[in-house]
Amino acid sequence: MQPYSLTVDKFLDHAAKWCGDGQIVQADAGQVVRRSTYRALRERSNRLSGALEALGLRFGDRIGTLAWNTQYHLETYYAAMGIGLVCHTLNPRLTIAHLAKMINEAEDRAIAASADLMPLLRELGPLCPTVEHVILMDDGLAATELQDSDPPRIWPYEALLERYGAPAKWGDFDENAAAGLCYTSGTTGQPKGVLYTHRSNYLHAMRALQADAIGLAGNDVVLLAVPMFHANAWGLPFAAPAVGAKLVLPGRHTDGKSLAALIRDEGVTVAVGVQTVWMGVVDHLDAVGGELPDLKRVLIGGSNCPEALIRRMEERLSARVQTSWGMTELSPMGTIAPSDAAPGDAQASGRPPMGLDLKLTDANGATLAQQRGVVGHLKVKGHSVLDRYFKAESDALDEEGYFDTGDLASIDEAGNLTISGRSKDLIKSGGEWINPTEIEAIVGCDPTIGAAAVIGRLDAKWGERPVLIVEPRQGRDIDPEKLIGALRGKVADWWIPDQIVEISSMPLAATGKIDKNRLRSDYENGKMEAKRLRR
Amino acid sequence: MQPYSLTVDKFLDHAAKWCGDGQIVQADAGQVVRRSTYRALRERSNRLSGALEALGLRFGDRIGTLAWNTQYHLETYYAAMGIGLVCHTLNPRLTIAHLAKMINEAEDRAIAASADLMPLLRELGPLCPTVEHVILMDDGLAATELQDSDPPRIWPYEALLERYGAPAKWGDFDENAAAGLCYTSGTTGQPKGVLYTHRSNYLHAMRALQADAIGLAGNDVVLLAVPMFHANAWGLPFAAPAVGAKLVLPGRHTDGKSLAALIRDEGVTVAVGVQTVWMGVVDHLDAVGGELPDLKRVLIGGSNCPEALIRRMEERLSARVQTSWGMTELSPMGTIAPSDAAPGDAQASGRPPMGLDLKLTDANGATLAQQRGVVGHLKVKGHSVLDRYFKAESDALDEEGYFDTGDLASIDEAGNLTISGRSKDLIKSGGEWINPTEIEAIVGCDPTIGAAAVIGRLDAKWGERPVLIVEPRQGRDIDPEKLIGALRGKVADWWIPDQIVEISSMPLAATGKIDKNRLRSDYENGKMEAKRLRR
Repeated sequence: MQPYSLTVDKFLDHAAKWCGDGQIVQADAGQVVRRSTYRALRERSNRLSGALEALGLRFGDRIGTLAWNTQYHLETYYAAMGIGLVCHTLNPRLTIAHLAKMINEAEDRAIAASADLMPLLRELGPLCPTVEHVILMDDGLAATELQDSDPPRIWPYEALLERYGAPAKWGDFDENAAAGLCYTSGTTGQPKGVLYTHRSNYLHAMRALQADAIGLAGNDVVLLAVPMFHANAWGLPFAAPAVGAKLVLPGRHTDGKSLAALIRDEGVTVAVGVQTVWMGVVDHLDAVGGELPDLKRVLIGGSNCPEALIRRMEERLSARVQTSWGMTELSPMGTIAPSDAAPGDAQASGRPPMGLDLKLTDANGATLAQQRGVVGHLKVKGHSVLDRYFKAESDALDEEGYFDTGDLASIDEAGNLTISGRSKDLIKSGGEWINPTEIEAIVGCDPTIGAAAVIGRLDAKWGERPVLIVEPRQGRDIDPEKLIGALRGKVADWWIPDQIVEISSMPLAATGKIDKNRLRSDYENGKMEAKRLRR
Repeated sequence: MQPYSLTVDKFLDHAAKWCGDGQIVQADAGQVVRRSTYRALRERSNRLSGALEALGLRFGDRIGTLAWNTQYHLETYYAAMGIGLVCHTLNPRLTIAHLAKMINEAEDRAIAASADLMPLLRELGPLCPTVEHVILMDDGLAATELQDSDPPRIWPYEALLERYGAPAKWGDFDENAAAGLCYTSGTTGQPKGVLYTHRSNYLHAMRALQADAIGLAGNDVVLLAVPMFHANAWGLPFAAPAVGAKLVLPGRHTDGKSLAALIRDEGVTVAVGVQTVWMGVVDHLDAVGGELPDLKRVLIGGSNCPEALIRRMEERLSARVQTSWGMTELSPMGTIAPSDAAPGDAQASGRPPMGLDLKLTDANGATLAQQRGVVGHLKVKGHSVLDRYFKAESDALDEEGYFDTGDLASIDEAGNLTISGRSKDLIKSGGEWINPTEIEAIVGCDPTIGAAAVIGRLDAKWGERPVLIVEPRQGRDIDPEKLIGALRGKVADWWIPDQIVEISSMPLAATGKIDKNRLRSDYENGKMEAKRLRR
C-alpha cells in the first residue's frame, strides 16, 4: 500500500482542503476577539514555518511556547511541528525556577509567548542562555517596538510573519520524529519531560475520534477549556481539524461567566475541561439563570468526580457528562466513559479505547491473578504511551513493556476503570494501607465542604496516621463530628482521621490538582495556618 | 513513545480482553446457527493459528478462503493474519478459470472453504498444484470422512482444531507485513491482486471508526451483509472488535426475508451492504409487514443510489441511509456520507475521512485548476490506498503519488464527492463524451425499469453511439417513448440513445455490479436475446 508518514501536519492540511471554511474562534474573557478558518490558519501557520526557518531554527530544534488557548498558539503548534521542530509547551503558572530548568534542559532556541506574559519573560531571559528568539503573540505590537533587546531578539508575531513569512514544506519526514515536549506537573516528584512523536500524536488523535471516546463529528463545536500548554490539550488541536469541527479557544480566562457566554454564543456542542471549570459554569448559571441549548456533552478529567456533582452538572447543563482519566505520559488520554454510559457507571472512567491496554499489579509489579473487582497498581501500554522520559538514561517500563501510572485503580467486570488513588498518597498505618481517596470522596459529598484532602502524618506508634484537611464552601460552617459520622460504617474505624484541619484555601499545583506535597510539608513544618477542628 | 506494531491481531486481542462477552452471531437463511463471544473466538482463532503452523504454513505464505460470512471465516482471518500468513479471500461466485488463475498466481498453500463449496473445490483441485491443504468449514464433518484424497489433504475444520490446535504467538512482526490479498472484480479488465498490509488495515479500521464515517460504538449491533470474501468486508472484521460491537454474520443468504428476520431478532442497529440487498429487505417488509425498531443506520455502497430509493429505504426502515463510495484498491472505504447529512445531500458520498485525499484531473492526468463543481478523473492518496498491484512490476501511481480510480466524479463546495461514472464506460460520439451514468440515473427512476445500462456501439459516422439496455421490473411493460421523453431536456439531444434493447435479466459480475463488458460483447456478437424496442 502507499507510503504515508503519520505526521500531524496532515491534520491541518486535511482540514484546510476538506473543511476549509471550518471556524477557529478565539475569545478573551468570554468575548470573541478573533475568527479564522482552517484554510486561513493553515496558510498563516505554514508561512510562520517559513519565518522560523528564516530565524535559523532547524529540524529537531526545540521551540518553547508560553501561551493560553489562542489562535496564535495553535498556529505555532503547526508551524513548529510541520517542519519537524519540537513544540515545547510550558505552563505559565509554574515558578520561574521550574520554567528555567525545563527551558534549559530542553535547550529551547526560541520561545513564543503571549504578550501578557512579558514580565515572566523578562525574568526568564537572563536564566535561559539557549533562547535566541522570543516571539510575542499579540497583533497590537508594532514591528519596531521591541527590537532593542538582543539577544534574545524579540519579535512581534505579526511583524515576524510579515517580514519572514514564506511557504514551507511540511511533513515528508519520519513519523517517529519528535513533535512535542511537555513536562509532567511534578505534584509527586520532579517534573520530567515527555517527548511526543508525530506518530504517537497522530494515532492518539485517531484513538480519541472513536465514538466511545471523544467521537467528534464535523458538525460539532468544541470548546477547548483544557490548556494547550499541557499534554497536547487532550490531542484536540489534532482531532478537531481531522474532522473539521469548529474549535472555540477561550484564551486565558476559564471562569464560569466567560465560558457560559462562549458556549451559548458560539453554539458549543462538546466542552472539554476539568471538573472545577464546569462547576464554575454551573454556579454561574445558578446565579444568573440562562440555558446552553446546543451543549450535548461535557468531558471532564483530571480527578475523580463524585456522582452527585455529575448529576448536578448534567441537570443544570442539560448535557451528558463523560468522565475520563489520563496523564501527561499518555498523550494524555487514557480511558473515557462513553456518552451513553448508564448513570450509575458515571464514576468509572470507561474502558480503554483501541490502542491502549491496562493491567493491574501488586506493589512489587507482579500482575494480579484477578484483574477484575480488585484494587491494584495500574500499568499501561499503547502506541501513545511514554517509554522513556526526555533525556533519561533508561526506559520507564516493566519487563512486559508496561508503564507504571502511579495510580491505584480497579476494573469492573465490564472493563470499566475506576481510579482509586495515587500509590504515593497511600498512608501506611500499623502495617496496613489507608487510601486517602476513599475518605476524600465521602467527605467531599458534605454540602459544607469545598475541597478535602487526606494526608499522612508521622506517628510514633502506628507509623502514619491520616489527617483530614478541609476547605469550607463559601459562607458555610463545617461540623467536624458530622464529617466523622459520615465516615463511620463506610470505611474501617482505624481509617478515620484523628485530626481535622480547616484551611481557608487548598494549595493547588499548576495543573489545578491539590498539591499534597505542599500540604504535607506545611503540616510537618507547622506552617499550616489553620483551625484545628478535631484534637 | 512506546513501540507498537500496527498489526490487526491487536483488534481481536483488545476485544477479547476488554469486551470479552461481546457476541458474534452466525446465521443461515435468517436463523441463528452459532453464537460465540470475542473471548471464545480469540481463543479458537489463536489455536487455529497453531494448527496452521502444524500444517507447515509459514510467515508470508498465502492461504486462500472460499467462504461466506461466517464465524469460521472470521476465525480464519485472524488465525492467518495473527501469525503473518496472507489471507487471500476468494469470491465463490467467480468462474473456475478465474479462481484457478488467482490461486495459482498467489501460490496459495492452503484453502479454507465453506463445506457447501466442495463441488467447486473438486473442480479447482487438479488446476491448482500449489494447494497442499484444504480446510472444510463445517462442524458436521467427521474427522476421518475425507482423508482419502491426498494431496491436497482435506481437513474438517473442527477435526483440525482438535488435532493440531495450539496457542500461537500473534503479532510482534513488522506492521508493513502483508495481511490480506484480494483481487479486483475485473468488470473493467483482468482481475488484479491488491495486497493489504497490517498497517493499512489497522489505519483503515481507525479511519472507519470516525464519527462521520462508520462511527461504531460498543453498544452497536452490526449486520455484515457485504461479503467477507471481498475487500475486507469494508474493514468491519477489524473495526467491530476494535470497539467490541456485536457482530451479526448472515452466512450465505442475503435475501430480504433472511436479513429482515436477523435485524429484528438480533437488534441490529447498523446494517452494511449494497443497495440491492436493502431494497430486498424493503420489498419483503412491504409484502409481509413488520418493523425493525432497533435499526438506526443503513450503509450502502457499490453504486450510486437514486434519491427516491434512498427516501423509500429511509421511510420503510425508519433508519438513516448513509451512501458511500469505495473500491478494492482502497481497502475498500473511500468516502461516506455522515449520518446527519441533509436529505438533499443523500446522493453525494460524503467527504473523505482523515487519512484519504482526493484530486480531480483531466483525461491526461493534469490536475484540474478548478477542483469544485466540475467533473474530472478521480485520483486518491492515503495510508490504505494501493500503490502497486500484486506481482506487478511498477507502481500504479502518478507523479504526485495518487492512484487513478478509473471513476469520474465531481466534488461540491463543501467537499462532498459524487461519482458520475467510470472513465472506461464513457462513450465518444462525434468527438465528444457521453456519460452513460447520467442517462442510466434518469431512466432508472421510471417505475417500469428494474435495471438500466447504457453502452456504446460502433458507428461509422459518429465513432460511437449510445444503446440503452433495460430490464423490466417484474410484471411491468416498458414504454420506450416514455423513457426517451424523460431524457429530453435533461441531457443533450445527441446523448439520447438511438436504440433501446429489452433483456429479461442483466448480466452481473461476481460482485453484483452490471457486467458491461459482457453487455458490450453480447451486443456486438449479436448474442443478445432481446426485444429491440426502438429501431
